[in-house]
Amino acid sequence: MSDIADLTRRMRHFTEARAWAQFHDPKSLTLALVGEVGELAELLQWVRHEDQATVVREQPLHDRLAEEMSDVLLYLLRLADVVGVDLAHAAADKLQANKDRFPPDDHAGVAPAKV
Amino acid sequence: MSDIADLTRRMRHFTEARAWAQFHDPKSLTLALVGEVGELAELLQWVRHEDQATVVREQPLHDRLAEEMSDVLLYLLRLADVVGVDLAHAAADKLQANKDRFPPDDHAGVAPAKV
Amino acid sequence: MSDIADLTRRMRHFTEARAWAQFHDPKSLTLALVGEVGELAELLQWVRHEDQATVVREQPLHDRLAEEMSDVLLYLLRLADVVGVDLAHAAADKLQANKDRFPPDDHAGVAPAKV
Amino acid sequence: MSDIADLTRRMRHFTEARAWAQFHDPKSLTLALVGEVGELAELLQWVRHEDQATVVREQPLHDRLAEEMSDVLLYLLRLADVVGVDLAHAAADKLQANKDRFPPDDHAGVAPAKV
Repeated sequence: MSDIADLTRRMRHFTEARAWAQFHDPKSLTLALVGEVGELAELLQWVRHEDQATVVREQPLHDRLAEEMSDVLLYLLRLADVVGVDLAHAAADKLQANKDRFPPDDHAGVAPAKV
Repeated sequence: MSDIADLTRRMRHFTEARAWAQFHDPKSLTLALVGEVGELAELLQWVRHEDQATVVREQPLHDRLAEEMSDVLLYLLRLADVVGVDLAHAAADKLQANKDRFPPDDHAGVAPAKV
Repeated sequence: MSDIADLTRRMRHFTEARAWAQFHDPKSLTLALVGEVGELAELLQWVRHEDQATVVREQPLHDRLAEEMSDVLLYLLRLADVVGVDLAHAAADKLQANKDRFPPDDHAGVAPAKV
Repeated sequence: MSDIADLTRRMRHFTEARAWAQFHDPKSLTLALVGEVGELAELLQWVRHEDQATVVREQPLHDRLAEEMSDVLLYLLRLADVVGVDLAHAAADKLQANKDRFPPDDHAGVAPAKV
């Protein structure tokens, strides 16, 4: 079974069982998502660049990262549910669009410019 | 099949085919995630509270939200892959922990305090 | 005296007195800024739309908002210092550019479109 | 004169001249702030760690960073104005509190733990 659909359904039940759907308008859910992304950023902010690859796989950081990434995912799935977006389908489409937009040979080893 | 695992695998191939893995350290990926969350926030910032439920299901906003939420999901899955976290499993665990932490009868209709 | 310059100078001394400048590269400071913005978002996420104007002026929320906005400002000033940007000057320029870009008569009561 | 107070006053006039104050509730302004922080993050996300110190002082990145940091500052000052916080005063207080919380001798060269 689709685990995105399954987690989405379970988050909906969790929300409804506590009568929290009244708080879950799109703008409020986006602020909640931002809060969790902020907690994720705090875990990494002072990690030295050269230590990253190692420490993210060590405890206690590894489990804390898993927890904050989970919170980000759960709010994102909740937002998609409220907005009526099939996120598994939309993300597959977006990835295909990115493949078409960035042909491998033209972009090998060059990060897309943002400036 | 698990669509979280499938999207994760496809993002990894997309990245490797362009030799972009060199840019995907955890701190850089978190900044990329923040960029996409920012684009999502921009879509909603000036939507009137009372119009939200309607306009998020209308075009062009609906498709734009789907696109930005997809970008957030794809970077989140990429980060989880780099960090070595099984996000489908971690999110299911976190949701169960939240159920235990907030018994329905004690929290009905009351948003968890953050202040 | 300019209070932006004064706070910037004091943040620099605070940082140097603790030998923390080694952690303050631009990407790490941006992650720290994101962390503080996340804490600000968490304070507001479940506040009801119609209660906002009142509760942001009541305790304990008022002081918590002041504290998180202060953290955002202090990291922003620190980032500007590291990057070599005179933020008081840059912000005055940006505000003037916005005035030119959005003539009042053409934009009265209409939020700039982001979609 | 205080440049924080001056920029705050000018942002208020800019907003009122366009009848945009109706959009500037605290939650919406926080989403706008998030949008600008996201644009700042995008500028830095794929910059290589070892290139940061140099490229942030080169064009076009330097001016783009100044512009996005300005947007963050202007929305932050606008939010503080709407919430009724004297941000210059609050930030000075917060910096003093941080000095008391982190005595230099106890924290020399050690980033505050977030995990």
